Amino acid sequence: MLNITVPTLLLDKAKCLNNITRMAEKARRNRIRLRPHFKTHQSAQVGEWFRAQGVEAITVSSLRMAVYFAQHGWQDIMVAMPANIREIETINALARSIKLHLIAVNIETLQALARQLQHPVNIWIKIDTGYRRTGVLPHNYQDLDQLMAFIASQGRFVFQGFLSHDGHTYKQTDKEAIQTIHNTSVYLLQQLRRRYNSLFPQIQLSTGDTPSCSILEDLSGVDEIRPGNFVFYDLMQQRIGSCAYQDIAVCVACPVVALHPERQELIIYGGSVHFSKEAIMLEDSSLMYGEVVELHPEGWSAPLEEMEVVSLSQEHGVVRASDEQLRKYSVGDLIYILPVHSCLTADLMKGYLTLEGEWLEHLSGVPAQRQLLV
Amino acid sequence: MLNITVPTLLLDKAKCLNNITRMAEKARRNRIRLRPHFKTHQSAQVGEWFRAQGVEAITVSSLRMAVYFAQHGWQDIMVAMPANIREIETINALARSIKLHLIAVNIETLQALARQLQHPVNIWIKIDTGYRRTGVLPHNYQDLDQLMAFIASQGRFVFQGFLSHDGHTYKQTDKEAIQTIHNTSVYLLQQLRRRYNSLFPQIQLSTGDTPSCSILEDLSGVDEIRPGNFVFYDLMQQRIGSCAYQDIAVCVACPVVALHPERQELIIYGGSVHFSKEAIMLEDSSLMYGEVVELHPEGWSAPLEEMEVVSLSQEHGVVRASDEQLRKYSVGDLIYILPVHSCLTADLMKGYLTLEGEWLEHLSGVPAQRQLLV
Repeated sequence: MLNITVPTLLLDKAKCLNNITRMAEKARRNRIRLRPHFKTHQSAQVGEWFRAQGVEAITVSSLRMAVYFAQHGWQDIMVAMPANIREIETINALARSIKLHLIAVNIETLQALARQLQHPVNIWIKIDTGYRRTGVLPHNYQDLDQLMAFIASQGRFVFQGFLSHDGHTYKQTDKEAIQTIHNTSVYLLQQLRRRYNSLFPQIQLSTGDTPSCSILEDLSGVDEIRPGNFVFYDLMQQRIGSCAYQDIAVCVACPVVALHPERQELIIYGGSVHFSKEAIMLEDSSLMYGEVVELHPEGWSAPLEEMEVVSLSQEHGVVRASDEQLRKYSVGDLIYILPVHSCLTADLMKGYLTLEGEWLEHLSGVPAQRQLLV
Repeated sequence: MLNITVPTLLLDKAKCLNNITRMAEKARRNRIRLRPHFKTHQSAQVGEWFRAQGVEAITVSSLRMAVYFAQHGWQDIMVAMPANIREIETINALARSIKLHLIAVNIETLQALARQLQHPVNIWIKIDTGYRRTGVLPHNYQDLDQLMAFIASQGRFVFQGFLSHDGHTYKQTDKEAIQTIHNTSVYLLQQLRRRYNSLFPQIQLSTGDTPSCSILEDLSGVDEIRPGNFVFYDLMQQRIGSCAYQDIAVCVACPVVALHPERQELIIYGGSVHFSKEAIMLEDSSLMYGEVVELHPEGWSAPLEEMEVVSLSQEHGVVRASDEQLRKYSVGDLIYILPVHSCLTADLMKGYLTLEGEWLEHLSGVPAQRQLLV
């Protein structure tokens, strides 16, 4: 392993490939398309691991990510945010060269697109099936009828279908609740397909958050799923039940800079600019920002008992540990920490170092470890 | 103003200069050195505004920042983290060319430095005066005596003095509590100066977090202060009482992508990868991630009543607003949001656009708005 001097995001390629393969196989078993969300990894190289599993269509959450992956050969890209009409130039540039899919949730956006689009784009209507972030409510036929009629009237729009994102699964911790959320979403989307079947006979249905796609076996009833986080998983997904600890494919290596055995804590170089401030609330209402593992030649261990990140400031982190665990660490050692939310940690860390010593890029920049030449 | 298409961090230079000038004048009145913490802005150009106020010595929180500011002509730089001995190569490279100050909190770090340093470095001992993050406890004379004796025995070490960071002021909201914390810190540092005066007759004392340095007028009794956040301030500092709303010098411009008047919310392109997940807990225990202002030709307004960011996912934000406020916004408009924690927001946004239309850099990268060329 390379000489790590600053907080560095490690990637266990074997775990990551296993996560990808398992989801690709589940999609094949269900005879549905896997259109993975690439916002979690934002890495051209990780994207190739999906391509090797037959994935051709992807999801991103910004036009910048769409541009990046288009530059890396992806030809079928959905931007899963309500379309941002201020970026019409980028939309037009992308729509000229790839199969671009945009999300509409209101008539104003569609009208602005219709006025300014120079090339055909694929349009999906986002349905709010319960998350209550954004989307058209599934029984708001007044708005839906208006949107569908407008889409049908415009030559630049290629209507693809209805899409939902069940982000409310993130608040659940049992399979039955997640099954209910998924069933509700599929039922509501199917109802809409029937309603508009005469206007558009080829309506597609798209859904799929990581909890539903990880926990449920039967994902039939829709045409595609769009999970993203599963590529790495994280402690939040472990809590939900989407993965086991051993499926978590990223881990932050941090230098130990101080030991405080008198209060059972050690201080790491690694803070909120590395992990993000995303936390898990424990049963006693305290917040937890990461769990500690040990790195062995064959990969990292399960989380150590009685050891966790209890506080983060900008560059410092505080790890609380039992006396027994604390005795294992010296100033200058590295300590290895599973992140609470891998999407945000990867965005902050700006790149990955595989356990084989290979650097993989992240769209957000260049990792500090690769910049430290004076 | 430039055509903003994606979330963009705006900087009001007049407010920022005012914040810098006020702190520089306070330091002059108190006859102490202002060694501002540059981790908040991480910008060569903002650094120049400090230089114009006579600032020559700075604080940073990583060696990477030290390298960056050394490359921009800063010659006296303190790295205010317990020294990370894994970065000895960078330490040696910096110590060759600038006056580098490192922080020690334990003998192991000093021993490792003594073995590997190639040039003299300035050493400060960090004292834990109450924050309980890191540092030597002020009455732990056993460790302190050992550290001081070791420093005195090593030719590469230039002992500077004792330093504290009163991060616990961030939990306070009244001036008396902050005054007490500051007085305690100064008293404890002065005691140590007296204790070790015969060994080192020129011991310096350094303290200074943004709440203490902003709220208190009398900062005498130490030799230097190291506040950082005051350059921009933010909603957290406004809550503490460090600043008024009109002192907050940064603001995120976000495109509005959807309106949900039926539940009094609008959706912005702007999420946790732009703002960070730092939140303020309101009286009803709900979390608030930003307050909304209006941009006028002369700058932005005070926060609007009945309007705030109530939720952030990776790229989406949810703003709750009264019917009256909601009616002012259309899809495609920009909405302007004061951040909860400007240090983390600036780190994520990777650059600043001044109200005069000038781009300023941030060490963390290049802002998305400047990369959108297809």
